[in-house]
Amino acid sequence: MFETGLARNAANYTPLSPLSFLARSAAVWGARTAIIHGPRRFTYAQMFARCRRLASALARAGVRRGETVAVLAPNIPELLEAHYGIPAIGAVICAINTRLDAASIAFILRHSEAKVLLCDREFAALAAAALASLPEPPLVIDIDDPMNESAGTPIGAMHYEAFLETGDPAHPWTLPAEEWSAIALGYTSGTTADPKGVVTHHRGAYLNAVAMALEFSLTAESVYLWTLPMFHCNGWTFTWALALVGGAHVCLRRVDPALIYPLLAEAGVTHLCGAPVGLGMLIHAPATVRKKLPRPVCLVTAGAAPPSTVIAQTEELGFTVRHVYGLTETYGPATVNAWQPQVAALPLAERARFIARQGVHLPLMEGMAVLDAKTMQPVPADGESLGEVMLRGNCVMMGYLKNPAATEAAFAGGWFHTGDLAVLHPDGYAELKDRSKDIIISGGENISSIEVEEVLYRHPEVMEAAVVAQPDEKWGEVPHAFVLLKPSARGVVSAADIIAFCRANMAHFKCPRHVTFGELPKTSTGKIQKFALRAKAKQV
Amino acid sequence: MFETGLARNAANYTPLSPLSFLARSAAVWGARTAIIHGPRRFTYAQMFARCRRLASALARAGVRRGETVAVLAPNIPELLEAHYGIPAIGAVICAINTRLDAASIAFILRHSEAKVLLCDREFAALAAAALASLPEPPLVIDIDDPMNESAGTPIGAMHYEAFLETGDPAHPWTLPAEEWSAIALGYTSGTTADPKGVVTHHRGAYLNAVAMALEFSLTAESVYLWTLPMFHCNGWTFTWALALVGGAHVCLRRVDPALIYPLLAEAGVTHLCGAPVGLGMLIHAPATVRKKLPRPVCLVTAGAAPPSTVIAQTEELGFTVRHVYGLTETYGPATVNAWQPQVAALPLAERARFIARQGVHLPLMEGMAVLDAKTMQPVPADGESLGEVMLRGNCVMMGYLKNPAATEAAFAGGWFHTGDLAVLHPDGYAELKDRSKDIIISGGENISSIEVEEVLYRHPEVMEAAVVAQPDEKWGEVPHAFVLLKPSARGVVSAADIIAFCRANMAHFKCPRHVTFGELPKTSTGKIQKFALRAKAKQV
Repeated sequence: MFETGLARNAANYTPLSPLSFLARSAAVWGARTAIIHGPRRFTYAQMFARCRRLASALARAGVRRGETVAVLAPNIPELLEAHYGIPAIGAVICAINTRLDAASIAFILRHSEAKVLLCDREFAALAAAALASLPEPPLVIDIDDPMNESAGTPIGAMHYEAFLETGDPAHPWTLPAEEWSAIALGYTSGTTADPKGVVTHHRGAYLNAVAMALEFSLTAESVYLWTLPMFHCNGWTFTWALALVGGAHVCLRRVDPALIYPLLAEAGVTHLCGAPVGLGMLIHAPATVRKKLPRPVCLVTAGAAPPSTVIAQTEELGFTVRHVYGLTETYGPATVNAWQPQVAALPLAERARFIARQGVHLPLMEGMAVLDAKTMQPVPADGESLGEVMLRGNCVMMGYLKNPAATEAAFAGGWFHTGDLAVLHPDGYAELKDRSKDIIISGGENISSIEVEEVLYRHPEVMEAAVVAQPDEKWGEVPHAFVLLKPSARGVVSAADIIAFCRANMAHFKCPRHVTFGELPKTSTGKIQKFALRAKAKQV
Repeated sequence: MFETGLARNAANYTPLSPLSFLARSAAVWGARTAIIHGPRRFTYAQMFARCRRLASALARAGVRRGETVAVLAPNIPELLEAHYGIPAIGAVICAINTRLDAASIAFILRHSEAKVLLCDREFAALAAAALASLPEPPLVIDIDDPMNESAGTPIGAMHYEAFLETGDPAHPWTLPAEEWSAIALGYTSGTTADPKGVVTHHRGAYLNAVAMALEFSLTAESVYLWTLPMFHCNGWTFTWALALVGGAHVCLRRVDPALIYPLLAEAGVTHLCGAPVGLGMLIHAPATVRKKLPRPVCLVTAGAAPPSTVIAQTEELGFTVRHVYGLTETYGPATVNAWQPQVAALPLAERARFIARQGVHLPLMEGMAVLDAKTMQPVPADGESLGEVMLRGNCVMMGYLKNPAATEAAFAGGWFHTGDLAVLHPDGYAELKDRSKDIIISGGENISSIEVEEVLYRHPEVMEAAVVAQPDEKWGEVPHAFVLLKPSARGVVSAADIIAFCRANMAHFKCPRHVTFGELPKTSTGKIQKFALRAKAKQV
């Protein structure tokens, strides 16, 4: 009887899509500030009108449902608008990492079959180099941000503002017919092979944005500073989450503590996100720049386990550090170091050690498990047994574009395989030990590179550290530490000092046998490039 | 290309169901308090085990997917458990209004085809009377709450705790195969005809609970006091929302200020919900009971527009009043008086007048409109033109059980027809003027009974007031006011005083022509029964 006369209709069913958020915020908070960028301000009513213009202009330019529109830009209002205007015509946004080389960008434009490229002038030369190799280049629209101080000559057919003028600010705001429709395409960094195109959908974007708002208590009073690149998993869906609550975006062309500290105070920032390397940058900013915060700011960090010392120091500055973990394949954050009341009473160092755990699945994610990847059986929750982190739920990607084999492998056994190795603590919190490929196997023993790095970060003169496997005749592999010292310690602290410190603080077989000092190579999203360090270590 | 090789699978798709909330809270917050009831405490781990036992026991008792399990109980732990244990086997929870008469309860048990009735001892005699008329009565399980101080002899086959013992605490926790599956059945009050059975589903319950958590900033630190009956739209889905965030429920057998004020302080209550009549009860509690709150408590109110004076007085006690509006058909709240920063600066009376508006659709509801019900065209947003409030979105019911005609009428034109009349203000906020059937038509003019009541409530000696149409030879209808005076004013303030006050404060044609003093009849959910007053007015 519950299956008769109770069907879906226009009144009781709507596809889940973050497009609904903007329509509501424009209606409810029309006069409130949606976007701040230097002296520019857009209200929600203005933002909505601009997004409708963009949707209309793209449609008039011939872009159709299921086609890709790419964007090459830093964290500016136009990239936010693209997150709404492009999906509003059923097209798919592909925000390209601006730190890639021309060949990688060319690969992405070709693979995604991008019909239009919105390109910030700062990256015009890079884009031109990429476009040169394409037989059928997309229509290029130039973005000339008034806050752009860098060189660069427009290369496109039209300027973005002129393009918007071709669109209708009253263009109908249409949800997709199905919530299981692609909304975004994001490319993985592809350290070993061609990048993979991660396809996400409206339903997942909606639910992940809701989860962010819920977990980090976003409200209409929230002010979000864009330190995390929007091209990184669509800014962990904060691009959409702010419109859900009617909060404000503060745009930022580059992550620079000299810009960030004044904005934190002046714009009344309440939230920001970033990789641990970004945290390090905030902590180690020159004393003239660094300031204790006027009010607590929620800082959500992920990308790799932030060393305890970094968490502790960031808290001392006044940030409330929240630790999440996820991947491009999971719309960004999938797990969170959920706060527990008993943790508040712990000494700072222990508390920081707790916070460093990747934790439990987020409220709107369905499940997390640490499994033996061969048997798909859970490892014991003993804080020691290593397994692979697996995730499932509505905030897991649709799959990899044009890559059914990789998609199938990623979803084998009904879980998404993260490729990350972790232990499960007795309280159900996972703690990452390494990427499958980053584990060091020495004399038959597994050594977690993260564990060695944790110890290195506790050394008072270490600013950044990374540990990789170095081939060794006797042991198979041994740990090799790459260390960036604080400026004052350079030339003072020696490799022997570092190794002695490690031996005093961990099992000897885990200690680095080799130490190299200097800057660490990083990916565009601030992750240390271990593959580059491994190559270096092989040459030693 | 975005439709190939990107299908649903077990890793990337999960039906939305609030059952997921409890499983997660048991995993993440297992040791934290889920339920407080007098001296009883249940942790989330215990609550989960008890819900699994209940699911298992029901399955073993023969209850199957798509069958109804009814509950007749006040706001006690067992009714909370029923919100999880019953849907966990694909069955549908029907929480019956405990203030109904035996005939109405018999109708509901028959119409819902209930297979099991969980019955609190306080209502055993009432249930027995209802069951006597049923040819095939359900299996009855007695709940003997230790906090129950009332009389009543068990009537069932088994006690609830013994029934739980027949179940397995490790019973598999299974989500429905489809999120578009019935989760709950709630009966409307049915003032004119048989009650209608409102069917809601897992998807809507999930999304509405998320909306409550988001809008009212529920966290793991939240403590929710059960002043709102759980049988009223499943407690506006707060039954499920608390498990989403890991917050605590404080149960309450009856709404009594002498119980509520101590609990607010002792249990650290952060949130409660209630009809405006409940607010009035808190305000007018004896001075020995009434206390200024130690910390602000979020009080969510709905059911009818709370008079401005009631809002103002409640705020003075320390409550933060949030005003929502909705119906059984919309899982409870569908709109909210969304806070606007400029409102904070208004004088209290104006602010209260703003707060009294029903507002805008909630974040996860898709849309609200005020339409001419005949043309389905929007009325002008002028704060004066009357139209019917229409709603659409995922938090609108599936339909009425076994009543396709009523379902079709309710959803005509792609909107859910609320039957409530409102104006739309220029800022997009709706303000209820009346139920369609409560409007008074006098000399061809529409008179909003709510508007007259607003004025009556401003009279310093008026405690409760309701205005209905009284047939009149000359005018067709005239307003008749039913008023409950404050104890000190009884016999002092006259009908002429009341009418004079009204004439001094509103258009004369809107003023009551008749005033009757005394207690007002109320529905089980605290709404004043205007149909009863209309009947009285006819006899005058």
